[in-house]
Amino acid sequence: MQDRELTVDTGTRPALVDLTDECVRFLAEIDAADGLLTVFVPHATAGIVVMELGAGSDADLLRALKTLLPRDDRWTHRHGSPGHGADHVLPLLASPSVTIPVVDGRMTLGTWQSVALLDANADNPQRSVRLAFLPG
Amino acid sequence: MQDRELTVDTGTRPALVDLTDECVRFLAEIDAADGLLTVFVPHATAGIVVMELGAGSDADLLRALKTLLPRDDRWTHRHGSPGHGADHVLPLLASPSVTIPVVDGRMTLGTWQSVALLDANADNPQRSVRLAFLPG
Amino acid sequence: MQDRELTVDTGTRPALVDLTDECVRFLAEIDAADGLLTVFVPHATAGIVVMELGAGSDADLLRALKTLLPRDDRWTHRHGSPGHGADHVLPLLASPSVTIPVVDGRMTLGTWQSVALLDANADNPQRSVRLAFLPG
Repeated sequence: MQDRELTVDTGTRPALVDLTDECVRFLAEIDAADGLLTVFVPHATAGIVVMELGAGSDADLLRALKTLLPRDDRWTHRHGSPGHGADHVLPLLASPSVTIPVVDGRMTLGTWQSVALLDANADNPQRSVRLAFLPG
Repeated sequence: MQDRELTVDTGTRPALVDLTDECVRFLAEIDAADGLLTVFVPHATAGIVVMELGAGSDADLLRALKTLLPRDDRWTHRHGSPGHGADHVLPLLASPSVTIPVVDGRMTLGTWQSVALLDANADNPQRSVRLAFLPG
Repeated sequence: MQDRELTVDTGTRPALVDLTDECVRFLAEIDAADGLLTVFVPHATAGIVVMELGAGSDADLLRALKTLLPRDDRWTHRHGSPGHGADHVLPLLASPSVTIPVVDGRMTLGTWQSVALLDANADNPQRSVRLAFLPG
């Protein structure tokens, strides 16, 4: 297995950050052939989402998230900013991990798929992401 | 690693399509022993769901999806059919990928679990799915 | 690949059960180095969630689940306790599987992340979970 830890700037608002180019670069630099790429975020208030970016769906997803898990005072967990308890329930919806088949060194993503870090937590402007490639 | 691309008919309505038999066939044909099977859908408006099929929960899930992500005019993304923006937020809920341990050539699914392709997008009647088996 | 099946007591109420220590013990006992750990629950009404446990978010997540998938009479699937149809839609939100990179025998979890079994189904007080480690 080969792995790499990325540092990702996510800013101070809920955000989706495109990781696709970093994944492509990682696979090129380790000279990957066939295998599984796991993208994993080691944070309890973030997730990995594979989606189309750049045609409005980023904003749609962040808005839907706020509707599904409202940032009000319903949450028992009350550390951090108001409504932050919602961020800790994000893992019910978005997994911290996605595994993507790699063939001939290329992720088998569809045309419109990007690998994105979803960071709902405005209190942490910087996040880590781990890429791990298991050849086979 | 051994992999295969399936073509799946999903029709012109939101649908759950059972992929379990195709996974079993793939593992048999490559003579798999122990390893990890990743089922990955390379489309931005579809996901892989592992669930009980055939006892009403298929309809329940599709209806719940419509309640959680209503097909109305709230979405910024406005290509395709009315409400199609909702399909692009599906990846917040359903991942395009699931990884299943395989022991002695058999997926370690529970009695009631099937591997299903969830295609919420009525505009695409046919989808690809990639199966990738990493032995170990 | 090395794998192990755990038996987990989940009680007679919807519950989140911490599996982190069992994962750590498994990796130690098989003397794991680098590779991918897949945690998989072979039940159609349960999921694996990676989250912070013990600071109120457990209760928050279980309550949010009840709001998102209400345990009322809307469900077609009507076996088991009233509202049990909701449990069968859980896989839309929570996957039965998570894959975590392991480096030098240790899961690359963040400080606040635990691996939890989410069992929304009050009718089954005991569940299986499979751990599978693929070295590489």
